[in-house]
Amino acid sequence: MAVYTEVDDDALNDFLTRYDIGEAVAFKGIAEGVENSNYLLETTKARFILTLYEKRVNPDDLPFFMGVMEALSAADFPCPQPVKGKNGSALQTLLDKPAAIVTFLKGMSPRRPDANQCRQIGEAMARMHLVLQTSSLGRPNNLSIDAWDELYDGRESVAATLAPNLATLISGDLERLHDQWPDPETLPRGIIHADLFPDNAFFLGDTFSGVIDFYFACTDMLAYDVAIALNAWCFEARGEFNMTKGRALMAGYDSVRSFTEAERKALPALIHGAAMRFFLTRLVDWTDTPADALVRPKNPVEYAEKLGFHRLARTVEDYGYIAS
Amino acid sequence: MAVYTEVDDDALNDFLTRYDIGEAVAFKGIAEGVENSNYLLETTKARFILTLYEKRVNPDDLPFFMGVMEALSAADFPCPQPVKGKNGSALQTLLDKPAAIVTFLKGMSPRRPDANQCRQIGEAMARMHLVLQTSSLGRPNNLSIDAWDELYDGRESVAATLAPNLATLISGDLERLHDQWPDPETLPRGIIHADLFPDNAFFLGDTFSGVIDFYFACTDMLAYDVAIALNAWCFEARGEFNMTKGRALMAGYDSVRSFTEAERKALPALIHGAAMRFFLTRLVDWTDTPADALVRPKNPVEYAEKLGFHRLARTVEDYGYIAS
Repeated sequence: MAVYTEVDDDALNDFLTRYDIGEAVAFKGIAEGVENSNYLLETTKARFILTLYEKRVNPDDLPFFMGVMEALSAADFPCPQPVKGKNGSALQTLLDKPAAIVTFLKGMSPRRPDANQCRQIGEAMARMHLVLQTSSLGRPNNLSIDAWDELYDGRESVAATLAPNLATLISGDLERLHDQWPDPETLPRGIIHADLFPDNAFFLGDTFSGVIDFYFACTDMLAYDVAIALNAWCFEARGEFNMTKGRALMAGYDSVRSFTEAERKALPALIHGAAMRFFLTRLVDWTDTPADALVRPKNPVEYAEKLGFHRLARTVEDYGYIAS
Repeated sequence: MAVYTEVDDDALNDFLTRYDIGEAVAFKGIAEGVENSNYLLETTKARFILTLYEKRVNPDDLPFFMGVMEALSAADFPCPQPVKGKNGSALQTLLDKPAAIVTFLKGMSPRRPDANQCRQIGEAMARMHLVLQTSSLGRPNNLSIDAWDELYDGRESVAATLAPNLATLISGDLERLHDQWPDPETLPRGIIHADLFPDNAFFLGDTFSGVIDFYFACTDMLAYDVAIALNAWCFEARGEFNMTKGRALMAGYDSVRSFTEAERKALPALIHGAAMRFFLTRLVDWTDTPADALVRPKNPVEYAEKLGFHRLARTVEDYGYIAS
């Protein structure tokens, strides 16, 4: 949560001449997103978010991310809509960094989502998947199972310091996941958000109002997106899975796009794998973030605890699923 | 620039029940102010800034700061207006910290203010001083000359590492300032902002639109506020004072409230002293801020360079002043 690149009024006013969105009347750096610099920009016409893409984002991926938001906006799915400059491109450069302006979205992120919100995020995710089915865009998921051994390699000793026996458990998890991972071709695939945490979802009162932060979006099994969300939305403290929330999230999804039989069978491994992905990237950030960084890394222990639940689960019903 | 205390949606919604300002529809931590946690809050009725006062602010001073903003707002001087809770108080508690909601002010802070903006800030400051003359509020300036020896004590060796001979120069400055400092009773006194840097001033286009951040406000010589602003608004890079900007700022002030003869005589020492105050507090922050802090301290060298100019100046005309 930081602003890495400071944009002053001169640089901003100069930048805005490339757009047809009026003149700046307010501009504030916002503490949102750990990867990029974000500003809330109010002009004489409307409000926007200005993002400068910092070094963790590959500039080659930006047209894909913009394309995803454009496709969703065009289908009235509530998400930030990229604003095109006068040159027709939503991608510009500001202070030598790739930059984009998107529309401002109202809403609040729930810190402790309830079952009703879990159901709505399930529905919204399925709608998002359906809209994006018609897109020709694609981007490989470079944080999925093929990346995990390498992420873990050399960090066993750090894992061992986090919890007793954890290093051995993780090795066992990785082995089991390689065994049980579904053949991606047997499951419906498409563009997934891949980071749909409560932080990245907005509600107005109790009603879903939008999704933000598409900077991990990629092409993968659709059910893997559900698996990520189950980890992010349905756990209580200390690795306790809330079956009611799990049931609500999956039922919401199922009501818009029915899970296939193969998906239902694959979900336990996908859910386990999704927890592994976030455990491993947090483990990497935990060890690699310098002490003087502007961002505090998230503790990987939260995901180590979730892995503990997944080790014992066997079927999608163990996560609360009931066939409709 | 950081958010020190995270306020989640539950805590916020609960907090808002103490006010009559509608329900939250957007809430973003903003990277503004190095002392407190600030959030941009949009409700169904309007937009506001929510501030949580962190440990560097003395809670006993908060009624004074609120009172200053209230007095200015009541006189239509553009600044954030504290919003009272249903219990009649603008000061509340949130997550065990003092907290307040103030109205949102449009405008942009100039990074490189021009002479026209310097003139306007001079005018605005004089208006502010006149409005506050009728206030019965008061708070001592605990960062003025009586505090400097203690701030410097033990940090001579750090100063010596910043620039050749700097430690000796600072000691000489302090001696000269103690000699030349005006008797405070001989100059007009009142409530001053004491931190009116361009960061804390807003403009819409080229027109002054308001002042924020009154958390250093105190009772002192009015001309000392002008001295602080001359340091903050009228220097170019590397300690080069811009006489045109200095003239504009003082002329703007003079046009609303005329400097007394005693003030004109005292201004060179006050300007020199204002640079000393910011040099010393930055020197303290520079040495005391832990490497893993969320805030990067400002480099004191900028103010060491300004002190170099002040050492050679003798009269207010050396800063561009022309009697009107």
